[in-house]
Amino acid sequence: MSGIVAPNAVAAVDGQRQWDRLMAMARLGAITGADGAPGVNRPCLCPLDREARRLLIGWGEAIGLEPSVDALGNLFLRHAGKEPGLPPVLTGSHMDSQPSGGRFDGIWGVLAALEAVQALREAGTATRHPIEIVAWTNEEGGRFAPGCMGSMAYAGHSPPDAWDAVTDGEGIRFGDALAEQLALEADIPRRPLGVVERMRPHAYVEAHIEQGPVLEAEGLDIGVVTGIQGSRWFLVELTGESAHAGTAPLSTRRDAVQDMVRAITALNRLMEDPTDVLRFTVARIEVAPNSSNSVAETVRFTIDFRHPDAAVLTARGDAIESTIRQAVRHCEVAVTERFHALPAEFAPAVVEAVARAAAAQGLAAKRMPSGAFHDAQFMVPLCPSGMVFVPSRRGISHNPAEYSSPEQLAKGARVLAQVLAELAA
Amino acid sequence: MSGIVAPNAVAAVDGQRQWDRLMAMARLGAITGADGAPGVNRPCLCPLDREARRLLIGWGEAIGLEPSVDALGNLFLRHAGKEPGLPPVLTGSHMDSQPSGGRFDGIWGVLAALEAVQALREAGTATRHPIEIVAWTNEEGGRFAPGCMGSMAYAGHSPPDAWDAVTDGEGIRFGDALAEQLALEADIPRRPLGVVERMRPHAYVEAHIEQGPVLEAEGLDIGVVTGIQGSRWFLVELTGESAHAGTAPLSTRRDAVQDMVRAITALNRLMEDPTDVLRFTVARIEVAPNSSNSVAETVRFTIDFRHPDAAVLTARGDAIESTIRQAVRHCEVAVTERFHALPAEFAPAVVEAVARAAAAQGLAAKRMPSGAFHDAQFMVPLCPSGMVFVPSRRGISHNPAEYSSPEQLAKGARVLAQVLAELAA
Repeated sequence: MSGIVAPNAVAAVDGQRQWDRLMAMARLGAITGADGAPGVNRPCLCPLDREARRLLIGWGEAIGLEPSVDALGNLFLRHAGKEPGLPPVLTGSHMDSQPSGGRFDGIWGVLAALEAVQALREAGTATRHPIEIVAWTNEEGGRFAPGCMGSMAYAGHSPPDAWDAVTDGEGIRFGDALAEQLALEADIPRRPLGVVERMRPHAYVEAHIEQGPVLEAEGLDIGVVTGIQGSRWFLVELTGESAHAGTAPLSTRRDAVQDMVRAITALNRLMEDPTDVLRFTVARIEVAPNSSNSVAETVRFTIDFRHPDAAVLTARGDAIESTIRQAVRHCEVAVTERFHALPAEFAPAVVEAVARAAAAQGLAAKRMPSGAFHDAQFMVPLCPSGMVFVPSRRGISHNPAEYSSPEQLAKGARVLAQVLAELAA
Repeated sequence: MSGIVAPNAVAAVDGQRQWDRLMAMARLGAITGADGAPGVNRPCLCPLDREARRLLIGWGEAIGLEPSVDALGNLFLRHAGKEPGLPPVLTGSHMDSQPSGGRFDGIWGVLAALEAVQALREAGTATRHPIEIVAWTNEEGGRFAPGCMGSMAYAGHSPPDAWDAVTDGEGIRFGDALAEQLALEADIPRRPLGVVERMRPHAYVEAHIEQGPVLEAEGLDIGVVTGIQGSRWFLVELTGESAHAGTAPLSTRRDAVQDMVRAITALNRLMEDPTDVLRFTVARIEVAPNSSNSVAETVRFTIDFRHPDAAVLTARGDAIESTIRQAVRHCEVAVTERFHALPAEFAPAVVEAVARAAAAQGLAAKRMPSGAFHDAQFMVPLCPSGMVFVPSRRGISHNPAEYSSPEQLAKGARVLAQVLAELAA
């Protein structure tokens, strides 16, 4: 298959309109980062979030889309297909931000979906399947942990009341904040949570900024996302003995900092990867008593290990504890695995549709796994799923300096429009 | 020279009386540490400190010693010599403790001096020189930083009002706390601060627990302290760039934790010392943003480097910054030296007196530098100075688990008695 499916719809994508909507959204929770970078702080279920949702609903209704909300606050805008009985193609992302976040993470996937659907409608490209734009509740997890609550509940991965008792920094319960928002949105039609009438979505496609430097570094337009890499998170606790930095001979010490250095050095060897695909990060360290002239009694450090290949993730992840135990000389060692997510592989039907659309539009594309989590992860067991990435300047995300240009985002929306047209055709 | 000088005085040292006084002092600010260890929390210039001083004065007056206090609150108990015009031999230590301190650090040096002088008096061992027992104000620096204020002001190292504006954790100014204490001790004769009438002390001897494991490990009774090793303290700041732990390829990262590991590994090589005399400690680490899935942007860590040999201290200390710069791969490096104290060498006259006393009493002794700071350091430019160490169980100090046995402390007091008798003879 080649050539552009629905060329009129792709041509109808309006990069300036999409950018203007992004900037309008960015005013809701606008903050200023280092060097004056314009960021966003818009936690889920806060008044700013509700304002953003109303803005989105207004834009959707203006072009004839039907809004609905489910019990987790996931917000849908429905474009009707020619055959109402068919399952919908789902597309979207999230609208909440990190506390010191950027203007593109999440929200662009929602607005790209809106732009693509609007282009389809303006071009008169009727689809057999309905298309539903979705804004998932609380993807970031910045206010209420964990993230991806909306998509997890939708997918049946977790029960809808699983997080009711989770509190934010001010002690507000997630369940209460959600109930308040649902009450304030009582005028919006309610839909059942999850797969409606046992009808799985026909497909799920999520557009997102890459949040990594690969596309920019290689001069590419589109990331054809093949899946989401697996993750294993560990907490390592080393317990030695404190001592006076002036009196205790080095030969008698049980110095937890020195054993941490040995452990990380050994882990670096375990995690060597000439292909540069593996991600290994030690980024949180706590030393006690953390006094410059008292030898460290304990060190706690975290390991964030990710890989798209389940075999690598299992083999090297399982070797972490023994690697540390062999490296450490004086401390007691405790290694706790705190999170374990196998890699999620996207469906060929969606991956190939994204690749075809990019190629047909003459865009430079690359197949790549996603390093970050996304709501798409939880759609994988439900229906053929995939993602479209656009470049992130210097790979910066979760930061006001996050940036993708209007033209880069327009290219992403055009690819999404073609993919939706093809999947919903 | 051999044999015991003043054998009657040495025999008059009463280990039980010394221990009972130590335990009486330990009740003032008694705390309980891990495993029920009985510790002390008695900050300087607090009501407990004043109570301890009154107790000491009472014991001193009961045996005929004359108390006096100077403008820094340093407390003296004077034993008159046969020739009142001669400069005094000074002996003592400090009575304040760390916030979670032990029962021996500092206070034993004061009570050993009292015990030794009492034994001299009871044995009728008259001395030509007066002997003054001193309790220096604020050696620990736990409540008001820095420590050693009393001895520094006495020695003219710093002006007496240098620390007036220093505040404790509750915002109380050192100057105000000192003025309050001096007012409450208005009944105690006041003496001029520092060297009285340009008369330098004849000698200074300080008894102290080792605070290190050497004497215990080698089965020794007495440390003949040859000096206080020099110290250089550095703050190292590495500035890289934060990035998403899932998306940023390792090849593109500027990971401050990884550069810290490289720096410490290189410093370990620089600081190698088969003689086990050198002390090199990295014990305080601060990572930012210190989030498990965000590559570290900055790491700050401290270096505490000590050595008794000024040449080693200078050569290796001066090589620290270049060693770090050569080891670090991606971060900006800033190295700041925050403290630089050259080694203090004790006078042969005092060192040999301590060695002779230990040998004459059949005690197992070793010449050794002090790893920790002491008030004695500031007496070195003023007069022939030295110290006597006794073993610390497992080298533990600044901790309720700090312990030296009654017998070990009695041996120390006997050595001190002989040294005082010899120096003041």
